[in-house]
Amino acid sequence: MTTYDDQNIFAKILRGEIPNFTVYEDDDTLCFMDIMPRTKGHCLVIPKTPCVNLLDASPAQLAACMKTANLVANAAKTAFAADGVTLWQFSEAAGGQEVFHLHFHIHPRHAGVPITGPGVMGDMDEIKANAEKIKAVLDR
Amino acid sequence: MTTYDDQNIFAKILRGEIPNFTVYEDDDTLCFMDIMPRTKGHCLVIPKTPCVNLLDASPAQLAACMKTANLVANAAKTAFAADGVTLWQFSEAAGGQEVFHLHFHIHPRHAGVPITGPGVMGDMDEIKANAEKIKAVLDR
Repeated sequence: MTTYDDQNIFAKILRGEIPNFTVYEDDDTLCFMDIMPRTKGHCLVIPKTPCVNLLDASPAQLAACMKTANLVANAAKTAFAADGVTLWQFSEAAGGQEVFHLHFHIHPRHAGVPITGPGVMGDMDEIKANAEKIKAVLDR
Repeated sequence: MTTYDDQNIFAKILRGEIPNFTVYEDDDTLCFMDIMPRTKGHCLVIPKTPCVNLLDASPAQLAACMKTANLVANAAKTAFAADGVTLWQFSEAAGGQEVFHLHFHIHPRHAGVPITGPGVMGDMDEIKANAEKIKAVLDR
């Protein structure tokens, strides 16, 4: 499988070398907005320690990410008055992975609204505002 | 959100009231084949205790499922000589959920082979054989 490369963009985000719109952070995980959102409020949960994907992640890394995913999914559902949530995790290029640091996609979902196609850069002001909306729920 | 109904089909599978093609089982989780497979080797990981989805799952339920998901994803990747894995978790109908007991979809993926559409019943002999292939790797 893919070898971990500490020059991947999420490793750079974790080191503070490139900016992100943070939604939530704890000792083990970071949640931040996807800048190519495919749903309103699309965000990512990653472990702070290196692993490539589901295939090489430790039980502790996975547990920490899913605890955060539960927290953020509920907050995002509330923030956007969503009807549900879709979670994705892609492992290796054939599985859909593009950044090779484990990440879980959290998609707030509204009934009848499909997930849009990939690769479209979002509006940064809107993404920032959406991060603030989720944070406001988490801060209640 | 949806209230847990112990008459859902996965609760019936856990009670042994309806059959399943088991891939893996431990104290906390069960992995069995999806009978409407959308990839070769498509299987599901569920907790043995009740919860509806990501939104109401406990950290312990999520941790147990992901530990099993890691194990089964690696075994399935080996069993089918797959190039990657795609994991899905759908919460509430708007999120894609059809059975309201928490489950994670594990899709072995081959480069260039898309996930097929939903709702097509698989060939039971082939599904049974695919379960055996994953189990054979786990038993090594």
